[in-house]
Amino acid sequence: MAEGEAGVERLIELMAKLPGLGPRSARRAVLHLIKKRGVLLLPMAEAMAEVGRTIRECLNCGNLATADICPICAAEKRGNGQICVVEDVADLWAMERSQVFGGRYHVLGGTLSALDGLGPEELRIPQLLDRIETEEVTEVILALGATIDGQTTAHYIADALDERVSVTSLAQGVPVGGELDYLDDGTISAALRARRAL
Amino acid sequence: MAEGEAGVERLIELMAKLPGLGPRSARRAVLHLIKKRGVLLLPMAEAMAEVGRTIRECLNCGNLATADICPICAAEKRGNGQICVVEDVADLWAMERSQVFGGRYHVLGGTLSALDGLGPEELRIPQLLDRIETEEVTEVILALGATIDGQTTAHYIADALDERVSVTSLAQGVPVGGELDYLDDGTISAALRARRAL
Repeated sequence: MAEGEAGVERLIELMAKLPGLGPRSARRAVLHLIKKRGVLLLPMAEAMAEVGRTIRECLNCGNLATADICPICAAEKRGNGQICVVEDVADLWAMERSQVFGGRYHVLGGTLSALDGLGPEELRIPQLLDRIETEEVTEVILALGATIDGQTTAHYIADALDERVSVTSLAQGVPVGGELDYLDDGTISAALRARRAL
Repeated sequence: MAEGEAGVERLIELMAKLPGLGPRSARRAVLHLIKKRGVLLLPMAEAMAEVGRTIRECLNCGNLATADICPICAAEKRGNGQICVVEDVADLWAMERSQVFGGRYHVLGGTLSALDGLGPEELRIPQLLDRIETEEVTEVILALGATIDGQTTAHYIADALDERVSVTSLAQGVPVGGELDYLDDGTISAALRARRAL
């Protein structure tokens, strides 16, 4: 009990479990919180309690929501026939920040992984197939990571959809602002294969 | 409002203000919290609320405490006549982890700094002088960082104590420009053993 007070000690232990924080940075963060009790610690305690109380998964797409249906699924103008399939809510946020997609999402909650015991049932794939029937879906855009698991999952979904809708995936290539010198061979060869006329 | 839900958005904003976290890592941390609602989010909300409600400064030394007097000041066996002066509670924790100091502490809450408008009054230096009178202090050990501000503060305190007690400082062994909180236990304990008169 180097930190003396049990409550402080416990908070440090919990903070150290956050991604990107270890025991040392957790101690610094907790001291910072205590110094900024009024503007940071108490508001954060309240925000966490509120999020814990109100946030759940959208029953339709798996996005975070405070109601049964998330704002994106509830917005009529987002029902344009396109569903973008992402691994995670973080990926949905990334897509939304880019402000170029006007359709709805389907959050898998991971990728198929024999190692982690994640099968189609765990990944909301049956729900995706249901949505093809009930919503008037014309295109499923697979926005999954360019990893082995991501691509395995993409192929599994494409097979499961069985040509009932158009299935596309994000283009692979040189990232905007990227320098060729820093890219891996796989990206360069994918970009070369997918080259197009200027 | 890329993150959709106001509560989630607000929590991300608050988390991004923690040292070591930016907007991106704050988003990751919040998603992690939501995934681990039962074991992480709710316990953390509660721990923060509890710390916010119960933790205050020890009236004697400035350490964190749940009572008027912290456990170290309250422990009779810690009243060995030595007071170790540190800048911050993080430094007190670092000293305690090294387990070589058996006396009490005095937490300044910073260093003298004309730039930040921190004078002796803001740094609990008058309280330290009071303690020299009321507690039977034989030695004041200045465990301040080996920075310009830390050493300026050390000399100011040594002058203010005016040979009423023995004043020592941690040995050079503390790397120049280094902060106490970042040192390993061995360095701290070597520096404490090799302390010398100012």
